[in-house]
Amino acid sequence: MEKKIPYRFVLSEDQMPKQWYNLKADMKELPPPLLNPKTLQPITKEELYPIFCKELADQELDTTTRYFDIPEEVLDIYKVYRPSPLMRAYNLEKALGTPAKIYYKYEGNNTSGSHKLNSAVAQAYYAKQQGLSSLTTETGAGQWGTALSEACGYFGIPLTVYMVKGSAAQKPYRKIVMQTFGANVVESPSMTTEAGRKILAEMPDTTGSLGCAISEAVEKATTSENSKYVLGSVLDQVLLHQSIIGLEAKKALELLDVQPDIIIGCAGGGSNLGGFIAPFMKEKIEGKTNTRFIAVEPVSCPSLTRGKYAYDFCDTGRITPLAKMYTLGCGFIPSANHAGGLRYHGMSPIISKLYDDGYIEAMSVEQTRVFEAATLFSRVETILPAPESSHAIRAAIDVALECKKTGESKTILFCLTGSGFFDMSAYGSFIQKTMSDYIPSDEYLQKGFAKLPKV
Amino acid sequence: MEKKIPYRFVLSEDQMPKQWYNLKADMKELPPPLLNPKTLQPITKEELYPIFCKELADQELDTTTRYFDIPEEVLDIYKVYRPSPLMRAYNLEKALGTPAKIYYKYEGNNTSGSHKLNSAVAQAYYAKQQGLSSLTTETGAGQWGTALSEACGYFGIPLTVYMVKGSAAQKPYRKIVMQTFGANVVESPSMTTEAGRKILAEMPDTTGSLGCAISEAVEKATTSENSKYVLGSVLDQVLLHQSIIGLEAKKALELLDVQPDIIIGCAGGGSNLGGFIAPFMKEKIEGKTNTRFIAVEPVSCPSLTRGKYAYDFCDTGRITPLAKMYTLGCGFIPSANHAGGLRYHGMSPIISKLYDDGYIEAMSVEQTRVFEAATLFSRVETILPAPESSHAIRAAIDVALECKKTGESKTILFCLTGSGFFDMSAYGSFIQKTMSDYIPSDEYLQKGFAKLPKV
Repeated sequence: MEKKIPYRFVLSEDQMPKQWYNLKADMKELPPPLLNPKTLQPITKEELYPIFCKELADQELDTTTRYFDIPEEVLDIYKVYRPSPLMRAYNLEKALGTPAKIYYKYEGNNTSGSHKLNSAVAQAYYAKQQGLSSLTTETGAGQWGTALSEACGYFGIPLTVYMVKGSAAQKPYRKIVMQTFGANVVESPSMTTEAGRKILAEMPDTTGSLGCAISEAVEKATTSENSKYVLGSVLDQVLLHQSIIGLEAKKALELLDVQPDIIIGCAGGGSNLGGFIAPFMKEKIEGKTNTRFIAVEPVSCPSLTRGKYAYDFCDTGRITPLAKMYTLGCGFIPSANHAGGLRYHGMSPIISKLYDDGYIEAMSVEQTRVFEAATLFSRVETILPAPESSHAIRAAIDVALECKKTGESKTILFCLTGSGFFDMSAYGSFIQKTMSDYIPSDEYLQKGFAKLPKV
Repeated sequence: MEKKIPYRFVLSEDQMPKQWYNLKADMKELPPPLLNPKTLQPITKEELYPIFCKELADQELDTTTRYFDIPEEVLDIYKVYRPSPLMRAYNLEKALGTPAKIYYKYEGNNTSGSHKLNSAVAQAYYAKQQGLSSLTTETGAGQWGTALSEACGYFGIPLTVYMVKGSAAQKPYRKIVMQTFGANVVESPSMTTEAGRKILAEMPDTTGSLGCAISEAVEKATTSENSKYVLGSVLDQVLLHQSIIGLEAKKALELLDVQPDIIIGCAGGGSNLGGFIAPFMKEKIEGKTNTRFIAVEPVSCPSLTRGKYAYDFCDTGRITPLAKMYTLGCGFIPSANHAGGLRYHGMSPIISKLYDDGYIEAMSVEQTRVFEAATLFSRVETILPAPESSHAIRAAIDVALECKKTGESKTILFCLTGSGFFDMSAYGSFIQKTMSDYIPSDEYLQKGFAKLPKV
């Protein structure tokens, strides 16, 4: 007999996972290593220590430790907002008239508004342990900056956030949130760094990009006393921390006797997707399941669907280590018209490798269709989703509508990474029909590829 | 042996209350009845039907039915975001160094951002059942308007929201949220009603008030075809729906073997406070406990601590029924400088009666102290609270610090009614130190009292 599935299923505190899961320990082939951009040799821990916290650098390069204990102090904050709910989207299913069963893991149920807090707490904790004086980071949509501001506020660590200028204009209140948590917020590109000054000289009117903000934050950290840089996506360490999402989702589904057929996540830098799918991917790698995985990205920033699998810088300023990833070229800056989030030029090396090896599919979606899906979802599920998260909603709806045609009762699981409270100007432009779907031309993409580093 | 208390305790779907609790059925003395302002006689159901949905009017006047079944369709939405978590504020306790045990019921964990959704869903459902063509309402801080927009979006009912002009300026994105859920938002006072035109003629520069917005919404409903007015606070029906908060909190505490010594809630119109305390008050009325109850209001709008217990209109336009309540006079409009929420001139008749009978204490707090408490709370508990809710936080902290002095290990429970995502301009003015504490003079209050209706 099928178990009765509640609308909302929340594990108890006791059931919360106490370890993060490192998917690399189980991958048949590892992603190619990060390279030192000067020597083009695999980067060592020692070379990462000037940029990253020691513990995080160690996690970054660890390919064999399958499980990492989550420190007690980190669990103490996790317990305030986790386990996050696993939702059954009965109302959405009804609205679509689909035989599909739709589940979502809702990560917007904390005050930072997104899954980003999962890694922010970990990173701030390790910085505190190491006795650092300050941290720097970048933020695009503002979710990561908010989350890290919260985490640093909690641990009492001074933080400077480089916020993408275009996002700052779209989301003025994000800045005040971060300031409330005690952070110093600088709009990027700025005159406070070499990298920023250089980009402003070349493109005085640029609205900035995540890659550019990364350059500034890394430069600031490496030129300040006892300061390190922390990053909210792309890197393996972040996917490790975000595995809490997938571990909780998997445990909850097991308790409900549910096996997902299709798992969907939005993909910008890959942080939520990588953490969310990790424990499910383990089983697929082991041949125990045949789950489909779908990464969803915007048509205006199509790193997986139209990018190249190549070594590239993680930042626009070309100062970070080189990562082999699906990339549009580190100089790629998406159209300012694109308000739908997920604006990063590259993709997590782990996700890129899994995609290249055929474990993951990818699709790209137009932002107006994303906001259509978000609006429908908000009305029936009563959760106002972030534009980034809404890419996954769009894909889940499309798959569910396909099931309606074929009559298949597939089980769909997606990650709803955050809430859209700070994205109201984007929702406003959707309501006022001033939003358009920008698709970069092949010529434009070629320009980005032409500047890929020679490795 | 004491049970281990988790940071966050969430009842399962099965444990969610299936009935609302009507405190009036257990009060030793009932609040004096609503009066028809023309006849000064107790108002009848039939006289309420032109304004309110039938079922809601019936609930409003029901003093004997102890429990009302929550309709299945309402439970279906509750299940998306309820039961809400009961939190143990370990991190706040540690930050304060207090022996007090602090618990809070967190109602901001839904996309409307506050407890208001609990009643909005019920009211929209009954409107749908009655086959109404449209609804009208008012909103101050925007929480009620957002919640009702969500509920009406879900049930497909056209809604016009009169939003207090001052709040609309402070919270521009609230409007877009409501529009996203499909609502028509009008800033109040407006030229769309007699009441609005009259107020604008007298005070062209007014930033509006909740009482004034109510006048407009009631007028609009009563002059439109098959339309009714719905209200998010003050009325008994709203407190009835909000009893879900208290019922859940009580059940959770019972499962944890915890008995609160002091229960604290912020008080504007009294909706969260009334619903939150109801089942606990039942036991106090029955002589089973000696729990202290504290209502917290702003010094700038001190209806309980400096108001009069008198019959008054619920709105500025003097068209609603008369309610006996603690009031500053229906013409009272709080200082525009006051950004801390809770701007209503009166107070729920039930809360007013309980206060007058000595069951509840009241205190008023300055908005800068409220934002200090909110900022501390956000950093240690990682939840960014709404200014309204932060009044309760301020009081809980004050009580906990008192415990620190006396060494008493009291158990404090408060309701954290909502999140502050849309209050960033208020947080901004706190950060920039442009926020001041406005205390109305006795002379100003006398002006309000002078215009109280003669009953």
